[in-house]
Amino acid sequence: MSGNTFGKLFSVTTFGESHGPAIGCVIDGCPPGLPLTEADIQPELDRRKPGTSRHVTQRQESDTVEILSGVYQGVTTGTPIALLIRNEDQRSKDYGNIAESFRPGHADYTYWHKYGVRDPRGGGRSSARLTAPVVGAAAIAKKWLQQQYGTVFKGCMSQLGDIVVPFQDWSHVPNNPFFAASGDAELIARMEAAMDALRKDGDSIGAKIDVIAQNIPVGLGQPIYDKLDADIAYAMMGINAVKGVEIGAGFQSVVQKGSEHGDQLTPQGFIGNNAGGVLGGISTGQDITVSIAIKPTSSIRTPRQSIDKDGHPVMVETFGRHDPCVGIRATPIAEAMLALVLMDHALMHRAQCGDVQVHTPNIAL
Amino acid sequence: MSGNTFGKLFSVTTFGESHGPAIGCVIDGCPPGLPLTEADIQPELDRRKPGTSRHVTQRQESDTVEILSGVYQGVTTGTPIALLIRNEDQRSKDYGNIAESFRPGHADYTYWHKYGVRDPRGGGRSSARLTAPVVGAAAIAKKWLQQQYGTVFKGCMSQLGDIVVPFQDWSHVPNNPFFAASGDAELIARMEAAMDALRKDGDSIGAKIDVIAQNIPVGLGQPIYDKLDADIAYAMMGINAVKGVEIGAGFQSVVQKGSEHGDQLTPQGFIGNNAGGVLGGISTGQDITVSIAIKPTSSIRTPRQSIDKDGHPVMVETFGRHDPCVGIRATPIAEAMLALVLMDHALMHRAQCGDVQVHTPNIAL
Amino acid sequence: MSGNTFGKLFSVTTFGESHGPAIGCVIDGCPPGLPLTEADIQPELDRRKPGTSRHVTQRQESDTVEILSGVYQGVTTGTPIALLIRNEDQRSKDYGNIAESFRPGHADYTYWHKYGVRDPRGGGRSSARLTAPVVGAAAIAKKWLQQQYGTVFKGCMSQLGDIVVPFQDWSHVPNNPFFAASGDAELIARMEAAMDALRKDGDSIGAKIDVIAQNIPVGLGQPIYDKLDADIAYAMMGINAVKGVEIGAGFQSVVQKGSEHGDQLTPQGFIGNNAGGVLGGISTGQDITVSIAIKPTSSIRTPRQSIDKDGHPVMVETFGRHDPCVGIRATPIAEAMLALVLMDHALMHRAQCGDVQVHTPNIAL
Amino acid sequence: MSGNTFGKLFSVTTFGESHGPAIGCVIDGCPPGLPLTEADIQPELDRRKPGTSRHVTQRQESDTVEILSGVYQGVTTGTPIALLIRNEDQRSKDYGNIAESFRPGHADYTYWHKYGVRDPRGGGRSSARLTAPVVGAAAIAKKWLQQQYGTVFKGCMSQLGDIVVPFQDWSHVPNNPFFAASGDAELIARMEAAMDALRKDGDSIGAKIDVIAQNIPVGLGQPIYDKLDADIAYAMMGINAVKGVEIGAGFQSVVQKGSEHGDQLTPQGFIGNNAGGVLGGISTGQDITVSIAIKPTSSIRTPRQSIDKDGHPVMVETFGRHDPCVGIRATPIAEAMLALVLMDHALMHRAQCGDVQVHTPNIAL
Repeated sequence: MSGNTFGKLFSVTTFGESHGPAIGCVIDGCPPGLPLTEADIQPELDRRKPGTSRHVTQRQESDTVEILSGVYQGVTTGTPIALLIRNEDQRSKDYGNIAESFRPGHADYTYWHKYGVRDPRGGGRSSARLTAPVVGAAAIAKKWLQQQYGTVFKGCMSQLGDIVVPFQDWSHVPNNPFFAASGDAELIARMEAAMDALRKDGDSIGAKIDVIAQNIPVGLGQPIYDKLDADIAYAMMGINAVKGVEIGAGFQSVVQKGSEHGDQLTPQGFIGNNAGGVLGGISTGQDITVSIAIKPTSSIRTPRQSIDKDGHPVMVETFGRHDPCVGIRATPIAEAMLALVLMDHALMHRAQCGDVQVHTPNIAL
Repeated sequence: MSGNTFGKLFSVTTFGESHGPAIGCVIDGCPPGLPLTEADIQPELDRRKPGTSRHVTQRQESDTVEILSGVYQGVTTGTPIALLIRNEDQRSKDYGNIAESFRPGHADYTYWHKYGVRDPRGGGRSSARLTAPVVGAAAIAKKWLQQQYGTVFKGCMSQLGDIVVPFQDWSHVPNNPFFAASGDAELIARMEAAMDALRKDGDSIGAKIDVIAQNIPVGLGQPIYDKLDADIAYAMMGINAVKGVEIGAGFQSVVQKGSEHGDQLTPQGFIGNNAGGVLGGISTGQDITVSIAIKPTSSIRTPRQSIDKDGHPVMVETFGRHDPCVGIRATPIAEAMLALVLMDHALMHRAQCGDVQVHTPNIAL
Repeated sequence: MSGNTFGKLFSVTTFGESHGPAIGCVIDGCPPGLPLTEADIQPELDRRKPGTSRHVTQRQESDTVEILSGVYQGVTTGTPIALLIRNEDQRSKDYGNIAESFRPGHADYTYWHKYGVRDPRGGGRSSARLTAPVVGAAAIAKKWLQQQYGTVFKGCMSQLGDIVVPFQDWSHVPNNPFFAASGDAELIARMEAAMDALRKDGDSIGAKIDVIAQNIPVGLGQPIYDKLDADIAYAMMGINAVKGVEIGAGFQSVVQKGSEHGDQLTPQGFIGNNAGGVLGGISTGQDITVSIAIKPTSSIRTPRQSIDKDGHPVMVETFGRHDPCVGIRATPIAEAMLALVLMDHALMHRAQCGDVQVHTPNIAL
Repeated sequence: MSGNTFGKLFSVTTFGESHGPAIGCVIDGCPPGLPLTEADIQPELDRRKPGTSRHVTQRQESDTVEILSGVYQGVTTGTPIALLIRNEDQRSKDYGNIAESFRPGHADYTYWHKYGVRDPRGGGRSSARLTAPVVGAAAIAKKWLQQQYGTVFKGCMSQLGDIVVPFQDWSHVPNNPFFAASGDAELIARMEAAMDALRKDGDSIGAKIDVIAQNIPVGLGQPIYDKLDADIAYAMMGINAVKGVEIGAGFQSVVQKGSEHGDQLTPQGFIGNNAGGVLGGISTGQDITVSIAIKPTSSIRTPRQSIDKDGHPVMVETFGRHDPCVGIRATPIAEAMLALVLMDHALMHRAQCGDVQVHTPNIAL
C-alpha cells in the first residue's frame, strides 16, 4: 500500500536507497519448477548498469546479484525469491551541498514535504538506481514467459532530444551506446556529438523509448480497471522521469477516423496494429507496442534558482555523477516493467480461466 | 483482483452491463461524517449522460442514482455506499447482428477469447456506459476533497480530430456541446459541422482531453510504484478508448533540456509547471495537469472486414446508437478518474503521515 | 481496505444496513462459464433467513435475491455478479430507545467511538443480517467447487449452552430447528425447552458450531501468512458473535503428545485427522474440520447497566426482535465462509501452479 | 497474494528458508520520523532465538539483524525497511533422511503435493525459523505504538501439556525458561521435569499461550471482514503449529448467558472483559486478550508410519535439532503478531478517520 510492491500475483517488493548498504527485492508468486540461477539475472542487470559508456553516469557498480531464497537445487520452489545487490560506490559527499535545498525538477522538494525527513545521498529512494532490483525481478518473469508462451521483449530509443531515430532493425540495439535500432553510423555519431555537447554544457536532454512484447496469449488483462493497457501505463509512468505513455497509435489516434483506426480482421489475422495489441483492456495476441516520453535529468551542473528548507532563495548546481540523458538506460527498464505487467496478468488469467490457450490456430496474429 | 475495483482506501467496485437490469457500484472507505444525498451525485451523472446533444448517442437514460447504503440522516457513516442506476433504454435487438462476429477495434474479439462467453448486448461490460457509476462515486470524492482542501477539478476538450481548440477560459466549458474551453463561436460551429459530416458518413473521430486538479496538498503519492502520476496514468488509460496519457509537459519533455524542463523555485513558489504538479511521484501542490488521447469509436456504420467466431471472413457494420466521438463525453469521466486517484492518495497519505498539512505558507504554489 | 470485501481472487464486497433500503454484494472473480440463476442461490438464503421457527428472530423477510449482472443466458460471463436483496420488514422504531446509549456486549459503543456517527436501526451495519449477501455469494462458490472437485460442505450445532449434541449423522440436520446432527427426539425437546425458557427470561445463550468441507484438492493454501487455516480462522472469527475458532484437534492439541497428534500415513491414506485437513497451512486432501464458539446475543430484554453518549449511567433493555441464540442460524453462515475461503484458495492455487491435480491416486484420503 | 506479506498498510514481506543463506523481511509503510536502530530490534529477536535453554532447539544462531534500508541518521524515512539475518548454523545433512518421505503432522506432504518440489533442509520455508523476521518487524511496530499510544504487549505460557500454569504476575515471565507468569518454583520444576522426560522419550507436547495488548485506542478495526478480532485470529492461526484461537471469553462463551457475557458499562468504564477488548470487530479500549493452542512439534525421534514420494510405506524418525515443545518460544511470536495486527489497524483507522483520539476521558477503561 505504501507503493513499494509492484504486481499482485507476481509481486516484487523493493527496498534500498542509492547510497545505503544495499538494494534488492523480494519476488512473491513465482511459479515453482522454473530453473533459475544468478546467471539468468545478471545479464539483464548488466544491460542497465552504470558506467558502460561515457554517455551515462560514471558511478562504478558491478551490480552483482545474490539470490537469497526461493531456489533449491537450481529450481524455484514457489516460495519468495529475494535478490540482494550491495552498493559499492557510495559517495555521500557528492550530495552534501543539496541536502538543505531542492533541485528544480527533482523529488527533493516533495519528499521533504511528505515525510519531513529525507535521505539526500544520491537522491535516496528516488534514485533511478532503484530500478536495478526490478530489472532483476523481470529477468525471472521474462524467463517464465519465454518458456511458457515463447514471449520475447524488445526495446529501443526512438528519439534523443530532437534527433529522431528511424527504426531499422532490432539487431542494431546492442551495437551502439543508445539502444538505437539503427545501423546508421552517421546518425549514431550525431547522437554521440549531441551528448558530448550536453555534458560539456552541464545540461541534460529528454528521450523517447519504444518497447514491444511479442508472442503474447490472447486474453490477458481485466476488462474494467486492471486493463492490460492501464497496468502498462501505470508501470511505465512509474519509471523515473517518464512524463507520457502511448499504447499502439497513441496520440496519433486523436486525428484518426474510426474507419482507419480499427484494425480489420481476416482469417489470417489482424490488418494493422493501431490497437497496440490491446482491445477493451485485453490482449489480442498481436505485439504489445508501447512508447514513453522521458524528461531530461533534473540533476545538472547548470545553476538554477531554488529555495532552501526555510524558503530562502538559493542557487542550486549539482556536481555528482549523473546520466545526462536518463533515457539512455531506460530501455531495459521499460522492457522490465512490461514483462512484470504481462507476468502478473498471465497468472491472473490462469486463476480466472485456467491454463491459458495461447490462441486459436486459424488467426495468424 | 479481477479488475472491477478502483482504488485501495477509497475503493469503488462497479458492476453491470450496458443492457442488463442495472449498473452501479459499492464505495468502501468513504470517511464518516460527510453530508451526502443523491443531489450531490446526480449533477455529475447528468454531465456525462447520453442524449444531451445530437453529437452523442441518442440512447435515452435518465441515469437516476439511488443511494442504497452508507448514509444515515444525510451523513456518511463510514460503511459502504452502494449506488444503483437502473438501465431504462435497453435494446438488445440493435446488437443481434454482431453477436457472432467481431467489430474491428472493439473488445468483442478479446472478450470472446478470454472468457469463451460474451454478452453482446451493447458491448456488455465493455460499454462506456460503465463509466457512469464511477462518475457517481467520484462526485463523493470531489465533495470530500473540496471540503477538506478546497480541491477543484476542471476538464475540457483540447482537440477534436485535427481541430485544435485553443484554451480561452474554463467558464466556456458548459456552454457548448463539446466541453471546449473556448468562446469562439466560429470554432464551435466548425466542430459541429465536422461532427455532422461524420455522422452522415457513418464514421467516427478521436479527441484530446485535458483535465486539471487545483488546490492539492503537497505530499500525495507514493515514491516508487504507486507514484501519483503512475496511478493517474493507470486511471486514465483505463478509461474506454484512451490510447495515450501525458502529465505536465508530457511528450514535449523529449525535446526539452534539463535547464528548461526543471521548474525553478522562488520563495513565492514554482516558476512554470512542466512537472504537471508531480515530482518523484509526489504532488508538489501545483495544479495536476493531465492530457489524454481518445481513439475514434469502434462501432461505426461503415462496413469493414472482419471474421466470425469460426474464423470465416465477414463484413461488419454497426447500426446501434453510438457516440461518433467518444471523446465528447470523456471530459467528466477523466475528471472523475482524477478525483478518485487523489482521494485514494489523500487517505493513504493520512495513514502514513497523519492529518495532512496542506503546505508551508511561504510557498505560493 | 475498509474491510467490506472478503477474498482476493473471488472477492465479495457487501453493502447495506439492517434497516436500510437494501443489502447485497458484488462478487468479482467468478470464473466464466458457470451455469447460474437465482434458483442456485435462494435455497441457501432460505436456510439462513429469519422467522423459520419460534427460536429465531420473528422479523419477516423473504430474502429474495435478484442477480443484477454478470450472467448472460444463464451462464456466468467472468464479469462481476451483483446480488440485491431488498429489506422488507424495517421497523426503525424498535430501536429508537437505544440510539443514545450502548448495549453491553454490542457494537454500539465501538461504532460510535470509531465513526462519531452511528445508524442505530437494527444495529445498522453490525447486524447479523449482513451475513445474507455472503451466504448468497457462497452459494456460487459452492456450486463451482462442487462442479470442479466434487467438494461438499456440511455443518451442525454441536453444543447449545451446556447441552452437548453428540454427532449422529448429517442427515438429521434439516429435520430440527437447531441444525443438530442428531435424531435424538428427547435431546431436541430439551433444546427446545431451554430456548423457550430463555425467551421467557429475556436472556440469550451461546453455542458451538462444527463445519466441514469434503473432497478438497491437496495443495490449497499459502505457506506463511495466507495459510488455509489462518484464512479460515479469519473468516470464522469475522462472523458476528464468534469468540473462538479451532481447526482439527484445536485446543485438545495442547495436551497431546507429538506421537499422538501427528496423523500417520499409509499407502491407503492418513490415519486420523488431528490436522483438520491442513498441514503447514496447505490442504492435505482430508476433510477440513472447523469448530467455532458463538457468544450469546447481546440484545436482550434483561435490564443492564450502561452509559449514554455523554457518559451518564443508564439502564438498557432491548425490545426489538432478536435471535435468543445467534448460534442457531450460524451453521449456514459458517459453511458459507468456509466455502468462500476454499474458493479463493482454489483460484490462487491455479494462478500459481496451473490447473489443479486433485490428488495422487494411490493416497486414499 | 502468495501469502508472504503480512499486513496491508504496515506490510511485512518475509523471505528465506531454514537452511538457506539468509532470512529477512521488507517492512513497507512504517511512518517516517521514528527513531530506529538495530538495538531496538535485537532484544526481541533474542527473546525468540534458539539455544537459550536445554528445553528448546540447540541450533546455534546469533540471529543478528542488519537494517539495510529505510533509516537515515537513526530515523525512519517512510521508505521500506529491509531486515537481514544471515543463517549461521546450517546442517543440511541432518535432514537428508527425510527428503524422500513425509513426517506425520508436518508440512512435508502438502508442500510436495502443492509445488512438486520441496526444500527439505530444516523444513525449508515451513520452519518456525521464519518467525524471526516477523519478530524483528514487530519490534518496530511495538515501538511506534508505544510512542503513539503507550501500548504495551505481554505474553505468557498458561499451559504445558496437562500442566496448567495459574497466572500470578507478568514480572515472572523472564525468570523461567517457559515464559510462565508464575513464581512458583515447584511448578517450574515440574515443567522442567516434564520437558526432560519428553526429550528422553523423543516425543513432544502441546501448549497454550496467552497474550494481551494494553493501552489501545478505541475504534481500531473494520466492521465486517477486517474485524480486529478476525485479523487477530488470522495472525495467530498463521503461526506455526497453532490449532485454536480465542478472544476474550473464547470457547467459554458457549455456556454463558447474554446477561452474564455482555460486559456492562459504568461512567468509570467496563465491568469485566468477556469481549477481550473487541466489540463488533472494533477495539473498545480495554485490554485485547488472546489465547492460542499450539500443537506438539511434528519432528520427533519416535518412529512412525508414513509413506515416501512414491506412496510406499516407510517408517520415519527425525534426528535433527528440534524444539520438543514449539510452544515455549511461541510467546514472543504471538506478541509480535498481535503488534503487527494493531499497527496495521492503527494506520487504517488514521486513513479513514484522521488522527486517532485515544478515548473519551470520562471512560476509565
